[in-house]
Amino acid sequence: MAKTKNNKKSETESNKSKLKVILLGGLGEVGKNLTILEYEEDILIIDCGLGFPDDEMLGVDLVIPDTTYLEKNLEKVRGVVLTHGHEDHIGALPYVLQDVNVPVYGTRLTLGILELKLSEHIFDKKPQLNCIEAGETVTFGVFAVEFIHVNHSIADACALAITTPVGIVIHSGDFKLDLTPIESKMMDLTRLGELGNKGVLLLMCESTNAERPGYTPSEKKVGQSLDSIFLRNRNKRILISTFSSNVHRVQQIINISALYNRKVAITGRSMLNVITAATELGYMKIPSGLLIDINEIKRYKPENTTIITTGSQGEPMSALYRMAFSDHDKVELGPNDLVVLSAYAIPGNERLVDKIVNEILKRGATVFRDSMIEVHVSGHACQEELKLMQALTRPKFFMPVHGEYKHLVMHKDLAVQMGMPEDKILISETGKVLEFDADSAKFNGTVPSGPILVDGYGVGDVGNIVLRDRRHLAQDGLIVVVATVDIEDNAIISGPDIVSRGFVYVRESEELMDQVRIIARDTLEDCIEHNIKDWTQLKIKVKDDLSKFLYAKTKRKPMILPVIMNV
Amino acid sequence: MAKTKNNKKSETESNKSKLKVILLGGLGEVGKNLTILEYEEDILIIDCGLGFPDDEMLGVDLVIPDTTYLEKNLEKVRGVVLTHGHEDHIGALPYVLQDVNVPVYGTRLTLGILELKLSEHIFDKKPQLNCIEAGETVTFGVFAVEFIHVNHSIADACALAITTPVGIVIHSGDFKLDLTPIESKMMDLTRLGELGNKGVLLLMCESTNAERPGYTPSEKKVGQSLDSIFLRNRNKRILISTFSSNVHRVQQIINISALYNRKVAITGRSMLNVITAATELGYMKIPSGLLIDINEIKRYKPENTTIITTGSQGEPMSALYRMAFSDHDKVELGPNDLVVLSAYAIPGNERLVDKIVNEILKRGATVFRDSMIEVHVSGHACQEELKLMQALTRPKFFMPVHGEYKHLVMHKDLAVQMGMPEDKILISETGKVLEFDADSAKFNGTVPSGPILVDGYGVGDVGNIVLRDRRHLAQDGLIVVVATVDIEDNAIISGPDIVSRGFVYVRESEELMDQVRIIARDTLEDCIEHNIKDWTQLKIKVKDDLSKFLYAKTKRKPMILPVIMNV
Repeated sequence: MAKTKNNKKSETESNKSKLKVILLGGLGEVGKNLTILEYEEDILIIDCGLGFPDDEMLGVDLVIPDTTYLEKNLEKVRGVVLTHGHEDHIGALPYVLQDVNVPVYGTRLTLGILELKLSEHIFDKKPQLNCIEAGETVTFGVFAVEFIHVNHSIADACALAITTPVGIVIHSGDFKLDLTPIESKMMDLTRLGELGNKGVLLLMCESTNAERPGYTPSEKKVGQSLDSIFLRNRNKRILISTFSSNVHRVQQIINISALYNRKVAITGRSMLNVITAATELGYMKIPSGLLIDINEIKRYKPENTTIITTGSQGEPMSALYRMAFSDHDKVELGPNDLVVLSAYAIPGNERLVDKIVNEILKRGATVFRDSMIEVHVSGHACQEELKLMQALTRPKFFMPVHGEYKHLVMHKDLAVQMGMPEDKILISETGKVLEFDADSAKFNGTVPSGPILVDGYGVGDVGNIVLRDRRHLAQDGLIVVVATVDIEDNAIISGPDIVSRGFVYVRESEELMDQVRIIARDTLEDCIEHNIKDWTQLKIKVKDDLSKFLYAKTKRKPMILPVIMNV
Repeated sequence: MAKTKNNKKSETESNKSKLKVILLGGLGEVGKNLTILEYEEDILIIDCGLGFPDDEMLGVDLVIPDTTYLEKNLEKVRGVVLTHGHEDHIGALPYVLQDVNVPVYGTRLTLGILELKLSEHIFDKKPQLNCIEAGETVTFGVFAVEFIHVNHSIADACALAITTPVGIVIHSGDFKLDLTPIESKMMDLTRLGELGNKGVLLLMCESTNAERPGYTPSEKKVGQSLDSIFLRNRNKRILISTFSSNVHRVQQIINISALYNRKVAITGRSMLNVITAATELGYMKIPSGLLIDINEIKRYKPENTTIITTGSQGEPMSALYRMAFSDHDKVELGPNDLVVLSAYAIPGNERLVDKIVNEILKRGATVFRDSMIEVHVSGHACQEELKLMQALTRPKFFMPVHGEYKHLVMHKDLAVQMGMPEDKILISETGKVLEFDADSAKFNGTVPSGPILVDGYGVGDVGNIVLRDRRHLAQDGLIVVVATVDIEDNAIISGPDIVSRGFVYVRESEELMDQVRIIARDTLEDCIEHNIKDWTQLKIKVKDDLSKFLYAKTKRKPMILPVIMNV
């Protein structure tokens, strides 16, 4: 008896004493936006980022992770730790902190950028931000989180080493190895190696560049390319577009401009915001007198100015877009301008970027971009760096994260090449629960994980039905049929009127619209004659008859909205 | 007096005796779909292709060139000459021949593919197709058109040498130089060189790969890659997706399958059509007994079969797409499958292709694509080949065509590098008229050239207003407000009723909809009270009031459609 009881207890205990790892968010990418570690009564959140809608999500502004699971277990949630300040790692916090208002920990620049975002939202209770430095360790219940310095395309980025009751978990964050970084510190390989020596249970490592062989070049390489461009183009105004969060890139542009005696003007709201924050926090140093207001550029010779601008992704209405389409009130492009796109086109934005490149060339300006000269380097580790991370940490289990499925599979292949047994490599999916003890790992259930769509002020009020309707409307437009019926007298007393939008030029299709009206009237009269008084049935009948007619006539299927009113 | 008269006459003559070159079609690309040569009373059309809608053209199926100018000058149009059988060179003919039914000239395979297309349309007068062979010359009024064999990703492709009264014009068509072509003939460099020796007035040369250095590899390279894949994967079923029109590619897949004793099954309608046509016309040779029906594949061991499929661009509902999403009734993908994407992603399709790659990998299958191994080569000339074309033809004037503006600019740079004076290089635009005599070239006016959108059966009935409405509906959806008003009695006798689509989940937003109803009613009552009986004003008032309210509440701007009926 006692034995059974003991067994039962130890079984329960063994059930309880597992480390759960859950990935949330990450539209099309796994393990990108939000990671949950849970052990008994403690939950730790790693990052809380947003995604951008894909082409199917019409009208949607942002996509954030489903935090139902966190809200249900709110009393367990000890805090959020942030690896770095990019949108896909911090951008959902303004929304998530509304319901899950727990302390947030991150480095100085990360919190600086976060504060810019939080200031645009209203909170019942002010979010509690805690600044840490790489090298520090913070305790969250059973979890002790050590922040480890890494290189990335934003300053102040960290990997995390989380000591848990079942072993050490390393989360790479987003990283690359930069032997000549602008901020003057290489990523902390030594500490990762020391942890490897101690023994690592699980490595979660980002996979963005898992398909790219070799090493990612140093950020300094961009500086060298820019220097040679500045050297050879002393007679031109130079405009450079890059990601606003890449403070090292911006710092290099500023340094080189100073070297070549150029004043620097900045345009684009996010660029101004980040530069202000980064300068205040000491992450950027701008020689005094170097910056000029964009309104002042006419006071200087064009060849003595550099303009730093947003819009490297071809975003409509960004500063660069407006310049390209001759719609910027301060900057007009011409043959004396040299435009450098110091960025790559994020997958899906290629055509937008090509579009503005074509327009800039039409203005007579010259364009340099990363396909022509090394004016951009990635912030993510390539294959050899990913292998280095494996080699240093030598984990018992490996989980490739932060990538599309193809990246995760490729990253798995790399780990296998490094000698890792296949059954120790776990490709998870958004919402899946993975349970670890010191020796084993297994999938066990799921949590709610559907993407939450943000449209205007609405969080989650746009879902599949709304999107389906938007797609339908986008495809073939709409026909509204309105009639007033006196159901007692069995008579149509007004209409049917036809209104169409997004279907055909109505002026050129009067005949078609007349036919639509006649069919709608005939159908209604027929229903009334046959004593069909059920509203739903009436509407379905009108819809069906018009649908068939229009498809036969036009091969299109507009949305048909019958509105039948009773007097 | 006589002198003046003479002068006048010669002036008129000099005006008349110019060669006009006009480019039409080409969404975002210049000189792609249709080129017009005109001299006095004769017009010649080169190619007549279609474009695919960009992201802004919601619901549009195809885009064809505006042929207003041709219709106005119908009596002058002598015929259409086709360079090759790709959609962007022949795809608009089924539409254009309806109004401009002139004789069409092309090589055997080009016409074979064209006939497949024409058979899906009804014509008042059957189009007249004339088959020619490379090397032949056909006369169209003052124009003598010589067809010159070139290599391309479709068999039977030609460049054109057009002798005109002011000199020889060479139009490259789409081409590459293939020293080891599958069809066993290299492009006719000799003839181009002979024409160069005779003296060429104008070279119009395609610019697709103007940004790519070096030479495009031979089609044979793909065969070598495929052979090595077949050799190393004898234990797997192999599925290969490629462009259906690339008959040489398909021929190579068939030959290698035969070599490795695999039966070949074909899936995808366009693939079946083209293979049937190409085989009938003698452009493909399929060993007897090699082809099996896709329904029969279960009768063979998977490792003894090859499946050739459409869908290399990730097209939703293509055969490969359905396989990837486990929705194909004959083929289920699993770990024993190897999928080869023997194609590149056309710009704009990258994410679609990545999406199906991710899905195929989730099925456990292996994927090879062109970024990993050379399973695709371009059909277009790279920089060295473009220079070769310049060097052989040594034209007086050069017009880069068939490319985005950035490609044309780069192609111009290449010509300058070859020693061509900048002022002899003409970058034209869609719709611009360029006039040549033997010594000079200048732009002179424009012709109608807006893109004509095809949606279902409708050609040109979808325009800017319809598209703007579709975009509006796609972005924020729609609210319909319906009310019946007795204008004599100053009373609302029914409604207002509110119907919404694509805006918010109505069930979860009942309160919001109630507020909308109340505001609409208040506005209407207010108007009636103030004796506003003008329908348009009533509607504008309702729209404005609701618009303001909804934007303040939701930060969205749905389309608001008020329908007010009178009894």
